[in-house]
Amino acid sequence: MIRPTEDQQYYELTSPTALPKASGFLWNNQMMIHMNCRGYAVAQFMQPEPAKYSHAPNLEAKTFMQPEQPYYAHHPGRFLFIKDEESGYIFSAPYEPTRQVPDKFVFAAGKHDMIWTVEHWNLRIQMTLTLPKEGAAELWQIKVTNTGSRKRKISLYPYFSVGYMSWMNQSGEYVPDLGAIVCSSITPYQKVQDYPSIKNLKDKTYLLAERKPDAWEVSQEAFEGEGGIMRPSALEAGTLACGDARYEMPAAVMQYRTEPEPGEELTYRFVFGPAKDEAEIRGIRERYFGLHGEREQEAREPGGAESGNEPRSSTGSNRENEAAAADFSEDGFEKAARDYAAYVAEGRGVLTIDTPDKELDNFVNHWLPRQMYYHGVTNRLSTDPQTRNYLQDHMGMSYIDPRSTRQAFLTALSQQRPDGSMPDGIVLYEGAELKYINQVPHTDHCVWLPVCLVTYLDETDDYALLDEEVTYAGGEKSGTVFEHIDLAVKWLIGDRDDRGLNYINQGDWCDPMNMVGYKGRGVSGWLTIATAYSCIVWADICERGGRSAEAEDYRQQAEEINGAVNRHLWDGDWYARGITDDGVPFGISADEEGRIFINPQGWSLLSGAADGEKKAKLIRAVEEQLESPYGVEKLAPSYTAMREDVGRVTQKHPGSAENGAVYNHAAAFYIYALYAVGEKENAYRLLRKMLPGTDEADIRRRGQLPVFIPNYYRGAYRQFPRTAGRSSHLFNTGTVPWVYRCLVDGLFGVRGKPDGLRIAPQLPAEWNEASVVRAFRGAEFRIAMKREAGVSEAEVYADGRLAADGIVRGLRAGETCEVTVKLPL
Amino acid sequence: MIRPTEDQQYYELTSPTALPKASGFLWNNQMMIHMNCRGYAVAQFMQPEPAKYSHAPNLEAKTFMQPEQPYYAHHPGRFLFIKDEESGYIFSAPYEPTRQVPDKFVFAAGKHDMIWTVEHWNLRIQMTLTLPKEGAAELWQIKVTNTGSRKRKISLYPYFSVGYMSWMNQSGEYVPDLGAIVCSSITPYQKVQDYPSIKNLKDKTYLLAERKPDAWEVSQEAFEGEGGIMRPSALEAGTLACGDARYEMPAAVMQYRTEPEPGEELTYRFVFGPAKDEAEIRGIRERYFGLHGEREQEAREPGGAESGNEPRSSTGSNRENEAAAADFSEDGFEKAARDYAAYVAEGRGVLTIDTPDKELDNFVNHWLPRQMYYHGVTNRLSTDPQTRNYLQDHMGMSYIDPRSTRQAFLTALSQQRPDGSMPDGIVLYEGAELKYINQVPHTDHCVWLPVCLVTYLDETDDYALLDEEVTYAGGEKSGTVFEHIDLAVKWLIGDRDDRGLNYINQGDWCDPMNMVGYKGRGVSGWLTIATAYSCIVWADICERGGRSAEAEDYRQQAEEINGAVNRHLWDGDWYARGITDDGVPFGISADEEGRIFINPQGWSLLSGAADGEKKAKLIRAVEEQLESPYGVEKLAPSYTAMREDVGRVTQKHPGSAENGAVYNHAAAFYIYALYAVGEKENAYRLLRKMLPGTDEADIRRRGQLPVFIPNYYRGAYRQFPRTAGRSSHLFNTGTVPWVYRCLVDGLFGVRGKPDGLRIAPQLPAEWNEASVVRAFRGAEFRIAMKREAGVSEAEVYADGRLAADGIVRGLRAGETCEVTVKLPL
Repeated sequence: MIRPTEDQQYYELTSPTALPKASGFLWNNQMMIHMNCRGYAVAQFMQPEPAKYSHAPNLEAKTFMQPEQPYYAHHPGRFLFIKDEESGYIFSAPYEPTRQVPDKFVFAAGKHDMIWTVEHWNLRIQMTLTLPKEGAAELWQIKVTNTGSRKRKISLYPYFSVGYMSWMNQSGEYVPDLGAIVCSSITPYQKVQDYPSIKNLKDKTYLLAERKPDAWEVSQEAFEGEGGIMRPSALEAGTLACGDARYEMPAAVMQYRTEPEPGEELTYRFVFGPAKDEAEIRGIRERYFGLHGEREQEAREPGGAESGNEPRSSTGSNRENEAAAADFSEDGFEKAARDYAAYVAEGRGVLTIDTPDKELDNFVNHWLPRQMYYHGVTNRLSTDPQTRNYLQDHMGMSYIDPRSTRQAFLTALSQQRPDGSMPDGIVLYEGAELKYINQVPHTDHCVWLPVCLVTYLDETDDYALLDEEVTYAGGEKSGTVFEHIDLAVKWLIGDRDDRGLNYINQGDWCDPMNMVGYKGRGVSGWLTIATAYSCIVWADICERGGRSAEAEDYRQQAEEINGAVNRHLWDGDWYARGITDDGVPFGISADEEGRIFINPQGWSLLSGAADGEKKAKLIRAVEEQLESPYGVEKLAPSYTAMREDVGRVTQKHPGSAENGAVYNHAAAFYIYALYAVGEKENAYRLLRKMLPGTDEADIRRRGQLPVFIPNYYRGAYRQFPRTAGRSSHLFNTGTVPWVYRCLVDGLFGVRGKPDGLRIAPQLPAEWNEASVVRAFRGAEFRIAMKREAGVSEAEVYADGRLAADGIVRGLRAGETCEVTVKLPL
Repeated sequence: MIRPTEDQQYYELTSPTALPKASGFLWNNQMMIHMNCRGYAVAQFMQPEPAKYSHAPNLEAKTFMQPEQPYYAHHPGRFLFIKDEESGYIFSAPYEPTRQVPDKFVFAAGKHDMIWTVEHWNLRIQMTLTLPKEGAAELWQIKVTNTGSRKRKISLYPYFSVGYMSWMNQSGEYVPDLGAIVCSSITPYQKVQDYPSIKNLKDKTYLLAERKPDAWEVSQEAFEGEGGIMRPSALEAGTLACGDARYEMPAAVMQYRTEPEPGEELTYRFVFGPAKDEAEIRGIRERYFGLHGEREQEAREPGGAESGNEPRSSTGSNRENEAAAADFSEDGFEKAARDYAAYVAEGRGVLTIDTPDKELDNFVNHWLPRQMYYHGVTNRLSTDPQTRNYLQDHMGMSYIDPRSTRQAFLTALSQQRPDGSMPDGIVLYEGAELKYINQVPHTDHCVWLPVCLVTYLDETDDYALLDEEVTYAGGEKSGTVFEHIDLAVKWLIGDRDDRGLNYINQGDWCDPMNMVGYKGRGVSGWLTIATAYSCIVWADICERGGRSAEAEDYRQQAEEINGAVNRHLWDGDWYARGITDDGVPFGISADEEGRIFINPQGWSLLSGAADGEKKAKLIRAVEEQLESPYGVEKLAPSYTAMREDVGRVTQKHPGSAENGAVYNHAAAFYIYALYAVGEKENAYRLLRKMLPGTDEADIRRRGQLPVFIPNYYRGAYRQFPRTAGRSSHLFNTGTVPWVYRCLVDGLFGVRGKPDGLRIAPQLPAEWNEASVVRAFRGAEFRIAMKREAGVSEAEVYADGRLAADGIVRGLRAGETCEVTVKLPL
């Protein structure tokens, strides 16, 4: 049902119905497209705010990405209808909207493209989607092969949904001169002050065809007729009516009539996307199909009935012609695909692993760094990423492109307020506004400065960053990066009440926990613990930077805070989540719902608040109350009714998102903490639950391919077992850099130190060996780990020499080191 | 294809495909539902802002009602799936979503209900929708009759779409105790300050069934399966799975298995709507189905396989039982339907006509006052109606319930600013905010005070209203109604430039004409003319109120303004629409697009600006450039590109809405003006074009039933003939009171005067006679109009006596007068 390809470049799904929402995603700096296996698509591009060029059939709300979005018949999609002209039989690829189950179906979610292969009625359809590196555009290649033994008469109808563009103006028509269907609209607005920004938007959606179509239709309604989207009436006619749309909902549909001989393969290529005007579309045509593309197409008249008398393999790429024109000696379309593949390939991490767990290997070597890279280079397609997301996403970039992390820190700190507090979002474009949740004040953002910085420093040893001078928001005050972060940590320490607990205001890491402290008194248990951990992390950084006195102060501060935590928040078997404005502790054994939260437990292991006894108790409590077959839940039992002194989190559906899902971001914190205290078996068991599988029932339950970690799997396992484990299908999540840290700092123990690489693996008992290639500061460590009899604790040999403290030192960029790690049986 | 029923209470459509968007609408004070003939629905209710209980399949934008909305497979709807259990054959009523064309189809749009009758496979399905007078709820009755000669085994599946309720929380389940499917959600929000209002919203959607269903399904996805909405997979099983929805998109589907004998009629009744909680749903059950409804149902077990052995006619209304219970001696459902019919019947106008034009008769006697009434009692389901809409809608109420008009004037004037200007919207609830277009400053609102007031005074002679004391906005200053309106007219006179032309700011009556004067200099030709007309109307009111000196002043003022208009705006054959901020006149012969606008032409006839020569010229220009088979266009040629010195109107799709549609509101102004200057043939021809028909091609082109006048028919007839004439299907429009004034003041000439009713018909030449019953100040005038040889001008005889000036005086409330009008041949 699902399988990686041999080269590990794709994950394949061989059924259109087993995991109907299984999907992949592609992105570049200007856009993102999330496609499901059946042909439905969600695509956004930045101008600079997110916008759509393929819309729903109604006026959709502008909102952030939502989990578990339903698909429906007229959901935006990309399809190919195929008609057998002799029998009138119609089916569609990939699967929607006609839903004829084909003889063979393969959806291959790749790193830089997605490929569907559908075989039906002795025809093989291969649809490939890739993106260019620059610009918002989908590059589609459709190959149709006659796999039967007789000549066929068929019509092919690429169908690209355009949808309800605007109530002000929407229309569409085929523009022969461009060889494109061009749909036009005006983004709806009412105020004259909005006009200057509206006028520059890319309000056109085009479908640009390399080959001239035999016919087309641009009116959705005319295309569907009474047959509806599942069996459009327009397909009954010999040719489409070549209609337009005039304040009618457009669709971009073309028709190619063709008569392939046995074995003949036909290739069609399309570009689909947004544009400002026809001049831009003309430029796109030239870029991808060459200057003379359309003219030459008309001369060749491919795909027409007249031209189908002899077998041929036409790629439609006009190579001969382009070879003659000096400026277009290369096929622009193929070049773009190649450049895009190279761009995505830049998203490599620092680990290549080979373990007994092949699914983990595949995910870690290929998909996890890709997902981190996506976050880091796109900032989740937001112009105002939430501060904690921005910092954590760039923590992940420490493993891929540390220069970008460095720059992100400088950007974020330049928006820090002079009092040390951080804003709720980081504005990335002049004029961008804080939107949605960034309009709600949260108190945790400062935590992420030291916590994320340490990964950057581990990877790069770039302590010089701390000396960079950065202005504060407002531009008047300025200070070094060290001073900025120091002020942030001090702000956290200062933002506590008489008991020594951190105020929560309208939320901490848990965005919708908005009514615990909105009156100004409520405190966050987790945030207090996180403040202690921040002090420890910052103390270490101070120490390494030669500031021993400050380090000592911060360590003492952490100890005091941990004391307050144990005094006010320990509930007997685990830590409370907080204390409300009215002084009521919650997340405690007396609560019927929201009795235990994962975050205070894991972070108390990091901060050192939990001693050995507490540690054992809370780990047991988590296992008993929060662990499910699909991972560890964020809280349990999920709230089933509003709790007005906790807030909006309790109104979310039980088991969804922050209300008790297996919220992988929180799960990753916990796993990281388990590794931090050497709980390697618990850690690995939970880590492994982040990926679907390995058995088919689990895969069906999750409903997604292991090409990304979703922000959550449905929780409330004990309350609503039917839905537990279901993927949110949201690939935006702070989870991934933490999982990577779990691998680097924990499971494989290959963490950077100022003077070298410290090697201290925590392999699970079931693994006898594993090997890791670790890229580190330009050098390469080839590490073989193996359990051996007679070894009592890990022994690290670098190029044959024992490194007593496990730290391999002195390697320079470009050098390679063979490391052997002997582990106890 | 379309026909009124004999009693004129319904308009019937006999095809589900001829006019696929044909529709009707029902409303009460809390809700509105707009249903198309095929079963799709748009419903809103007020809490107090508009909200939905049956949603689209995605998160829809909150917006005002938009024209020509597309339908799509998963559009909200109300359907009945029917399965023949022997053959497995499935179809649906009314027509969507399976789209099986039935043997017989009748959609009857009624005044207080809508009835579908579908005959197929020897089954007759009758679906009836009505509303209660109070409360947001749909009352559905479904009758199924076995019209064949053998017993049948069938399953009936009422399907009520619930859709994507919320990303925070959505679920649904069957609650046996209530006999209802109850879907729950939380209206999405993020800010703690929004919680107090959110918490009181009716976030549940229920489908309450009188009879206990045999099975049900609440998960849309589980119901549809791979079959999709056109052929849901769940129908293949013997019974639905009785599933629930847990953060899954809900649908309310029930199943009744039944075995009707030949001739047997089964009745099922349902209530569908929003509720706060289960207690409210319980109350609704009791109100409509009686206290013991569900319990008794369980005992009777109707519709089950066991009970179908003998013919019966079960209404399911439990009459015997209810007769026993004193408090529920009446069937609540039937009583609600009867009360609602009575409520709608209150929306009578003052005219009952009998003319050679039977379609006009039907529309004027039945549908036009109903549409006026809808506007007046609901304020278009807005909490902040635009000021001009509010005043004009209540101008219409002068003919239906003048007390409501009186109150509306007092309400509006209490929000007038102390400087005489009017706000852009009238706030009807404490805390309501000016939204959408009401956030854009428009300069015309004061015009509507005298212009609408005169109709109220004509109807009631209630000059005492002018003496009522009303405070201004802010509550400090106060004045009489006379002083208020006087100040408004003076504000209009004062808001002019050196040339004597009225500033337009960001719009006048034409909302999107927002860039003519946004810099503060541009002027509106129409508004200047309308100011002159306001002065004249106000002068007449002053005069009648005994203020002759003021009257004389205002008449002189009007003359001066008309002079300025003729000096600066006359273009040679018609009046310009305005002059931009940069001094450029537009709406003139030199313009390639937007060359001529209708509004300045008609209003110049009203204001007296146009002398005889100008009148002839401009009427010819309108006929040549603006008249189409579907009415007179608002402007021509429609703009096809943004004109930045005119504004947003030029960005709307050519031929849609204000950009050159047959915008019926403007058309009605023009027709009214034609009657005002005695252009009765031109007036009648254009008036008649407001209704679809009479030939089939025209009806198909318009695409709607003549049960309301839409806000526009598509224009740009000369530019885009394919789409011209198409109805917007929007029944919110200021058109209707003006059409009524055209009939009262113009066509039938039965306008009120302080001392009686002035009778001066302007029948078109093609009519030899007409009769009118005119209700007027409690009296009834039965007026027979007839052309006779030898009559040179109209002669009016009241109860046989000639009224020399055409004014019938002295009639008191309760009295009746027989009037004969002799007209020239």
